[in-house]
Amino acid sequence: MFFLKSLNHVNKLSNSIKNVISVRYYRPRRALMYVPGDSSRKLTKAFNLDVDCIAMDCEDGVAMNKKDEARETIRNILNHEKVIVKRDFDRAVRVNCIGSGLCEEDLKALLTAKFLPDTVLLPKVESVEHIQWFAEKVNALIKGNGNVDFVIFIENPIGLINSHQICRAAVDLAQTGKFTPSSIVFGSDDFCAALGATRSEDGVELLYARQKTVLIAKAFNLQAIDRVHIEFKDLIGLRKYCEQGARMGYTGKQVIHPDQVPIVQEAFLPSKTQFEWATGLLTAFNEYQKKGAGAFVYKGAMIDKPTMKQAQNIVDVYESTKNA
Amino acid sequence: MFFLKSLNHVNKLSNSIKNVISVRYYRPRRALMYVPGDSSRKLTKAFNLDVDCIAMDCEDGVAMNKKDEARETIRNILNHEKVIVKRDFDRAVRVNCIGSGLCEEDLKALLTAKFLPDTVLLPKVESVEHIQWFAEKVNALIKGNGNVDFVIFIENPIGLINSHQICRAAVDLAQTGKFTPSSIVFGSDDFCAALGATRSEDGVELLYARQKTVLIAKAFNLQAIDRVHIEFKDLIGLRKYCEQGARMGYTGKQVIHPDQVPIVQEAFLPSKTQFEWATGLLTAFNEYQKKGAGAFVYKGAMIDKPTMKQAQNIVDVYESTKNA
Amino acid sequence: MFFLKSLNHVNKLSNSIKNVISVRYYRPRRALMYVPGDSSRKLTKAFNLDVDCIAMDCEDGVAMNKKDEARETIRNILNHEKVIVKRDFDRAVRVNCIGSGLCEEDLKALLTAKFLPDTVLLPKVESVEHIQWFAEKVNALIKGNGNVDFVIFIENPIGLINSHQICRAAVDLAQTGKFTPSSIVFGSDDFCAALGATRSEDGVELLYARQKTVLIAKAFNLQAIDRVHIEFKDLIGLRKYCEQGARMGYTGKQVIHPDQVPIVQEAFLPSKTQFEWATGLLTAFNEYQKKGAGAFVYKGAMIDKPTMKQAQNIVDVYESTKNA
Repeated sequence: MFFLKSLNHVNKLSNSIKNVISVRYYRPRRALMYVPGDSSRKLTKAFNLDVDCIAMDCEDGVAMNKKDEARETIRNILNHEKVIVKRDFDRAVRVNCIGSGLCEEDLKALLTAKFLPDTVLLPKVESVEHIQWFAEKVNALIKGNGNVDFVIFIENPIGLINSHQICRAAVDLAQTGKFTPSSIVFGSDDFCAALGATRSEDGVELLYARQKTVLIAKAFNLQAIDRVHIEFKDLIGLRKYCEQGARMGYTGKQVIHPDQVPIVQEAFLPSKTQFEWATGLLTAFNEYQKKGAGAFVYKGAMIDKPTMKQAQNIVDVYESTKNA
Repeated sequence: MFFLKSLNHVNKLSNSIKNVISVRYYRPRRALMYVPGDSSRKLTKAFNLDVDCIAMDCEDGVAMNKKDEARETIRNILNHEKVIVKRDFDRAVRVNCIGSGLCEEDLKALLTAKFLPDTVLLPKVESVEHIQWFAEKVNALIKGNGNVDFVIFIENPIGLINSHQICRAAVDLAQTGKFTPSSIVFGSDDFCAALGATRSEDGVELLYARQKTVLIAKAFNLQAIDRVHIEFKDLIGLRKYCEQGARMGYTGKQVIHPDQVPIVQEAFLPSKTQFEWATGLLTAFNEYQKKGAGAFVYKGAMIDKPTMKQAQNIVDVYESTKNA
Repeated sequence: MFFLKSLNHVNKLSNSIKNVISVRYYRPRRALMYVPGDSSRKLTKAFNLDVDCIAMDCEDGVAMNKKDEARETIRNILNHEKVIVKRDFDRAVRVNCIGSGLCEEDLKALLTAKFLPDTVLLPKVESVEHIQWFAEKVNALIKGNGNVDFVIFIENPIGLINSHQICRAAVDLAQTGKFTPSSIVFGSDDFCAALGATRSEDGVELLYARQKTVLIAKAFNLQAIDRVHIEFKDLIGLRKYCEQGARMGYTGKQVIHPDQVPIVQEAFLPSKTQFEWATGLLTAFNEYQKKGAGAFVYKGAMIDKPTMKQAQNIVDVYESTKNA
């Protein structure tokens, strides 16, 4: 509730910007928490948490002989309107990867429920063909003006190598499609397995992959969501790795346990300085718009569309969460 | 001898897999040891070592005025059947790079001997054109059904930049060619020189290059062979750098001295845990095959062809070496 | 003055090489110092320093309402012949980025002065189209046989992603153009902002970007110029970061304060060992040329054009600066 109020405040502030750069409603995903789709009990519990994004899982968290149960359970949830207990959240679904042969059935079950999920998470994306396949299915299944956020998982070497083309295709096909590319998730466990790498304490063996993932994400104006911290009882380590990821430009982290949520969401909250920079920029732009056209400079920097959206995102995350 | 026995065991275990994914005989290359091709004495000594791969060198280890002598010496060796003293090994040759103008003569001398080398190592690959040139020569020189393993060296910035296309071309041309892409070698000394970089203790200045090399290798299902440790008397440092490379996903290392061999081969031997995971997966797949078709899941992960081959490789390396 | 003398010495030494690989006059850019283009006082002061490259700035160092003043001030300077107080230096100009809409006016003012600037620095290059645009304008504005050095700034994710194609286009278009690609500058502040990254003490969050930048630069035989050290009073830190950059292959650094210049120029001076390697190589090549054609080997390494140019650069930097 507070969320909507504060968002209205932001909307007022930056209305003219939205006209110019058509910023969509921003969904923060500081913590993206996986919950097994076949467990009503765990799902219900999750909806009562203060968490940005709940990923109702059909994939790795669900055994092969429970896939149908997961689809049915999630579909049942999507047949009811989202109930906001603490504050609004991203009601997302993670389908199985395209290579599994299970993805189409997942999409059929989940995109034809009474309410669309806010977001579809697609694991193990490897190629432009995967994106084309996804676009075709989603566009056929969603009725009318429906639109879902789309989160791309990069989880193996070939996916990372093709990530530029993958994002390019996603952004291009979204122009006329019923989905909106919104984030890249870096899936480090599958990635390590495919690489034959071993995770060390400082994670130096994944620096290339993690930094390339952020780079591609930001080049396409997407959120970048960092790897899981598997040792879910190690909350001190968790905070450290959150900060490390945030320094690289990640804006959120995958989470596998409720205890991880508050630490992650605190670590990925924009700082007061960032918030002030962003509101300052948006206000200045408003002033500027009144005066005329041309290049727009703020604190010595030429401001372009991505910077505007970045500023808007900071304000949105900050506002949407500080009063939660 | 033990090698062949244990391989038969593996073959029995995973026969049905081989039918499906046509895994070739696996040549471990934990240690890839260079021996100057013009030195009969050093070559003979090397054949008596317990070493995975002996690279009979025509390139950097041979002075310009000894190139002919190297070709003749190696050709003479290849005119005799491989004698296995300790256990089977990779009888490889490193030719001169294409840019040197010496490569064609090397290939003519070495690929028309009575027995083919197991493997041809091609240094300083820079472009798709290099691969096309190599394919053409090799296909013309090798008679009948002969086939050699092919190891690609990435040793300079332009080679690394083009590495994706280089591997793509190698894999594609191998479909109808008489060579099988099998490894990428990262040549750090030439690389550092071309970059104007200086090797530091922790090697941080090469992280990008080394990690990109592993990434490309694994995306194309190739082995990744790490840089030389020049200070050949520093065996403690050697072990440390082996472990660092293995953590990144490297499966072997270039070696310039016999003393380095046992340490390297020990460090790149798959662990018992990895071996058990791999045999478990292969057994499960066998069971699975009996029951029917569809996606195959093992320990919660969807198993694809590369993972199968990775498992097979682990078993092969482990089995081929533990009884040596 | 010393500069010209020592360069003649080099010219004598390596005349035959120049015929073969057409090495241009080498402009060292160990320190590339920004000076606001609208400040005659600061510019005059800078010309009295012993500094490799003075970047007369129209971009970030100049307020929006001072752009005309900057253009006029710099044009006025370019209407007079370069006065060498200490030694020759690179009289460079940094124009505004193409996306700003200000670049064309900058180029018109600065490339039609009585004397050409030695070098044009183009910030925030993002695409091949930027290079094409630049080539078209420069070729139209420069009269006769004039030619400027061209420095490309990589300052955001999309620019880094496209850096390979950007350099390819620059090198190709320069064949028939009035500019010579000469360096890549890594602009870390804009880069960090676009990435949403935070600069840490050890800079680990920028390793991918910095190392990829060097890689691309060296693949195209360009200088690589490292990021600014913002804390200009921290001269100990400055030296450390210079050394770190030099180890990665950077050959110079951006500078924002005169106090930074001597430390930077000292740190990026080639070592005596490097100098001896380089002169040795050039002398050997001279000898070799007299004897005949074919591959040229020096200290066991096959010598190619880029290595020759690298050696020449080392000699030029060393000679041009040691007597300054």
